[in-house]
Amino acid sequence: MAPTRYALTLEFDGTPFFGLQRQKDGPSVQQAVEEAAQAVTGQQVTLHSAGRTDTGVHAIAMRSHFDVESKLTPFRMGEAINAHLRPAPIAVTHCEVVPEDWHARFSCIGRRYLYRIINRRAPLTLEKNRAWLVSPECDAEAMHRAAQSLVGHHDFTTFRSVHCQAASPVKTLDRLDVERAGEEIRIHVAARSFLHHQVRSMVGCLALVGMGRWNEGRIAQVLEAKDRQELGLNAPSHGLYFVEAIYPEAP
Amino acid sequence: MAPTRYALTLEFDGTPFFGLQRQKDGPSVQQAVEEAAQAVTGQQVTLHSAGRTDTGVHAIAMRSHFDVESKLTPFRMGEAINAHLRPAPIAVTHCEVVPEDWHARFSCIGRRYLYRIINRRAPLTLEKNRAWLVSPECDAEAMHRAAQSLVGHHDFTTFRSVHCQAASPVKTLDRLDVERAGEEIRIHVAARSFLHHQVRSMVGCLALVGMGRWNEGRIAQVLEAKDRQELGLNAPSHGLYFVEAIYPEAP
Repeated sequence: MAPTRYALTLEFDGTPFFGLQRQKDGPSVQQAVEEAAQAVTGQQVTLHSAGRTDTGVHAIAMRSHFDVESKLTPFRMGEAINAHLRPAPIAVTHCEVVPEDWHARFSCIGRRYLYRIINRRAPLTLEKNRAWLVSPECDAEAMHRAAQSLVGHHDFTTFRSVHCQAASPVKTLDRLDVERAGEEIRIHVAARSFLHHQVRSMVGCLALVGMGRWNEGRIAQVLEAKDRQELGLNAPSHGLYFVEAIYPEAP
Repeated sequence: MAPTRYALTLEFDGTPFFGLQRQKDGPSVQQAVEEAAQAVTGQQVTLHSAGRTDTGVHAIAMRSHFDVESKLTPFRMGEAINAHLRPAPIAVTHCEVVPEDWHARFSCIGRRYLYRIINRRAPLTLEKNRAWLVSPECDAEAMHRAAQSLVGHHDFTTFRSVHCQAASPVKTLDRLDVERAGEEIRIHVAARSFLHHQVRSMVGCLALVGMGRWNEGRIAQVLEAKDRQELGLNAPSHGLYFVEAIYPEAP
């Protein structure tokens, strides 16, 4: 029996996980999904995903796949994995069968993230671990203007974690939009791919602009410096959401 | 020193509480806020609130007040209570000083609730305990049409908990709007006051209409029956949010 490639759309609350990727030292989303798929199929399963997410980072629609010998329809496979995932806060929101040359990571040509800031004095309650609480009043329009200097093809060394394994610090940022909706500031980010910590590093510096601690022009200056020492602030992981993986055509 | 009446706007995640009101058998929002205010002022404090909420019900903007001898500005009082509330998921989002004839409960002339349904197969992750998961596909427009038969001045005996202490089952429902936004169905409810479990009872029956298990006309029939036995379903508490208390004029 030839293996079938099942593609999953995953939603998860990253709070209890040491990130998406399998880790030696704690629970991961990958481990939980692999164990659920193994319980369903009785076979060893390896999950491949469009993005890696750090501890505490959430996903609205991560895309992943695995190969297994199974005759289950995609609908039944998704339902069965969800049943075995309980009570972990991970859900298969869609499951489909894809061709064997479709790869969740390598076929992916675009990734979108959302970063949520709640800009107020009061501590978070319903949004605890769902957004970054920034207490000083922020100017979201200034953040948006400053963000535009990061859009395009740049060396993002300043916004790169020391643990980043990418071959090159040069990336093309397609979108970095900052908008306010009441007390919430939403930052929409899109690129083909990102450096490790790039989104959180960009958001942290934009927050400094928002608070007035940095002037708008400083974002362009620290980008130009290509020096991690120039980084102002790394935004916490719990405000970050992986929202979409884009593929050349619907698989 | 004459006592000062401080009015609070409270946001809370109802998940860990046995409701807003003080209970013998478990933690309540009232107890947590009173203890925080007592820690700040060194005085015995009694909290009065616009609404009572059940176990698991949330609040976006509950209004409450207490009297205490204090010279703290409202801003400092709110900050100090928040500091003492930690890590309970309750926050004072606004604090002001009001006249002694302003009463959070008795001056309140309108209350608004939001009920959130997530209408999908997959289990909830980020919205766990924040919305009611309803898996059968629901027709929100049919729910909205059926809901209109509940708007107005009626005997709501069918939608009243057996534990309800209200003198009369007759209430005037000002608004019951059902709208879909993607996979979410939002139900907006407004009235001067409500019977115990009224919102959850109405939402439960509307969900039966949405799923097609009840026809639209049945809502009017069960209202007319004035019989709790006719109630189809009580929606769970964790989808319910107290969103606004309305007063004759800004205090």
